[in-house]
Amino acid sequence: MNTSLLVTGSIGIDTVRTPYGVSEDCLGGSAVYFSMAASFFGPVRFVGVVGADCPFDLGEVFAGRDVDLAGLEVRPQSKTFRWGGSYAENMDERTTDYIELNVLAEAPPPVPEAFADSELVFLANTTPKLQLELLGQVREPVFVAVDTMNCWIQDHLGDLKSLLAKADCLIINEDEARLLAGEHNLIKAGRIILDMGLGVVVIKKGESGSLMCSADGERFVLPAYPASEVRDPTGAGDSFAGGLLGYLAQSGKTDFATLKTAIAYGTVTASFTIADFSLQGLTLINKTDIDSRLENLREVTSF
Amino acid sequence: MNTSLLVTGSIGIDTVRTPYGVSEDCLGGSAVYFSMAASFFGPVRFVGVVGADCPFDLGEVFAGRDVDLAGLEVRPQSKTFRWGGSYAENMDERTTDYIELNVLAEAPPPVPEAFADSELVFLANTTPKLQLELLGQVREPVFVAVDTMNCWIQDHLGDLKSLLAKADCLIINEDEARLLAGEHNLIKAGRIILDMGLGVVVIKKGESGSLMCSADGERFVLPAYPASEVRDPTGAGDSFAGGLLGYLAQSGKTDFATLKTAIAYGTVTASFTIADFSLQGLTLINKTDIDSRLENLREVTSF
Repeated sequence: MNTSLLVTGSIGIDTVRTPYGVSEDCLGGSAVYFSMAASFFGPVRFVGVVGADCPFDLGEVFAGRDVDLAGLEVRPQSKTFRWGGSYAENMDERTTDYIELNVLAEAPPPVPEAFADSELVFLANTTPKLQLELLGQVREPVFVAVDTMNCWIQDHLGDLKSLLAKADCLIINEDEARLLAGEHNLIKAGRIILDMGLGVVVIKKGESGSLMCSADGERFVLPAYPASEVRDPTGAGDSFAGGLLGYLAQSGKTDFATLKTAIAYGTVTASFTIADFSLQGLTLINKTDIDSRLENLREVTSF
Repeated sequence: MNTSLLVTGSIGIDTVRTPYGVSEDCLGGSAVYFSMAASFFGPVRFVGVVGADCPFDLGEVFAGRDVDLAGLEVRPQSKTFRWGGSYAENMDERTTDYIELNVLAEAPPPVPEAFADSELVFLANTTPKLQLELLGQVREPVFVAVDTMNCWIQDHLGDLKSLLAKADCLIINEDEARLLAGEHNLIKAGRIILDMGLGVVVIKKGESGSLMCSADGERFVLPAYPASEVRDPTGAGDSFAGGLLGYLAQSGKTDFATLKTAIAYGTVTASFTIADFSLQGLTLINKTDIDSRLENLREVTSF
C-alpha cells in the first residue's frame, strides 16, 4: 500500500515563450506539475486555490489519475495566480515577464481534515510562513520535503529556518543552496544546510543533474537525463519533486538507497516534462515510459 | 601487456593564483599532467620540448614512474613555455595573466623512431597543423585522441577538420564543443562533431562532469567526483585525459564499455589533481587511492 502523499502549492495560468514557440494562458503551477508527476506512482492529495476566473477544470485535467482534489478551493471573489516567462536561446536563462500573485497573496487554502493524517508532505515554494501554517495542519508527518527560493532566503530567513527545523528534506537549486549556505562549493554548502536541522538536502543543477547529501554523511550525484529535445523547462523542478516523492510514497521507505532511486525517478520524470510545453510532456506518457527511461538512465550512467 | 601510449604536449613553467594561495614558477604543461596521470596505469612515451632555462629535471619528476623521456628535447637556444593564470573566488572562471609561448612557437620536437610504432596517441592542445605533423610521425596508430581549444576552432578550422578526420576521439570542453558544432544542446553538438569523422567525442563540463557520445549512437554521462576540496583546477583536463588513455592502454581495448570505465578513471584522477597545487595532488597518491576513489564514485552515482 502506498504511503499517503500530500502536496501544497500553486495553480497558475502561465504564458511561456521559448525559442520553440509560445504557449499562452496554459495550465501551470507547482502543485499541478508535482501532482501530475507523482500520480504515475500512486495517489496524491492536492491542496491549492484558484479564483473564479480559472479556465481549467482540474477534475478533467487529472481524469484517470488518483489525484484527490478535496483540497482544491475555488475562491469566488479572487483571481487565479498568473505567471509569464521567457527562455533565451540556450534555455539556461529565464526571464520573468510578469507575476500576478492574486489569490496566492491571500490566506492559503485549508488542509482538509481528511488529509491531516498525511505521511509524506511536499510544501512547494511559497513564503516560509505559509508553508509553516500549512504544515501545522498535518498531524504527524513522517517525511516533509520543502522547496524555497532566493527571495525567502534573503528576506524571510528566520521563518525559513523555523520551517527547515521541522522538515526532513530541502529540494533547492544550486544558486539558492549557495545563497542559503553562504558557500560556493556545493558539498560544503550541503553540509551547512543540513546543520539547519534537515536529514537530507537535494541540490538541483538543471542540465547538470543533481546532488544529494544526508546528515549521516552519505552522498549521491546523478547527471540529468541526456536529452536532445528541450522545448520548455517550466515545471522541471516540481516534476522532479513529484517523481521523487511519488516514488517514496510508492516504496513506503525514505532510507538513503530508496532516496537514490527516487532522485533517478525525479530526473526521468522531469526529462519528459521539459520535452514539450506546459503539461503535454507528462500527459502523453505512462508509467512504462518512465520505467524504461529509468533503465536507460541507469545504462548511460553506469560503468 | 599494456598497449603503447604516446603523448605529445607542453611542458610549462606556471604561476597560478587561486583563493587558496599562489604557486610561483611551478611545473606544469599538458604533457606533464597527462603523463603523471597515465603513469598510474602503465608506461607512457613522452614527447615535448623545453628551453635551456627549464629549472625542472623531468627525470627526477617522473622517477619511479614508467615515463619514457626519449622524446624530451632540450633546445639550448630557446626558452621554456611560461603561463600564468588566476582563478576567481568560485574557481569557475580562469583569467590568463600571461602566455609566453617561447619554444612552443618553434618547430615541434620530433617523435623518436622508437615511438613511431605507438598504438594509442594523445595529441594535447596546440595548433592543429602541429598536431597533424606530430601524428604523421606515428606509423599505424590504433586510437588517436585529440584536444583543442577555442582559438583553433575559430582561426584554423580547416586544419582542425583535417586532423579530426584522422583521429578517433576528441576530448573537448563544453564551450568548445558548442563553438565547434554551432549548436548549444550538447547531445546534438556531439552528433555534429562525430560527423566530422570521429568514433567518439568526450565533452568535459568541469564540475558538472562529462558526456561521451559514439558514432554508433551510444551515450554515457558521468558527474564529476563530488569533492569538497578544490585548491587549483590547473591540469584537470590533461589529468582526465591521462587517466582515460592510461586505462585504455592498460586494458588494451577501446570499445564503449571500456571507454565508460576509462572516463570514470579520468574523472577520479583529475579529482586528485585539483585538490592541490601543481602536480602535488598526483605525486602523493598511488594506484590504490585511485581504485578506491573509483569504487567510491561508482557507489555515489549508482542507484
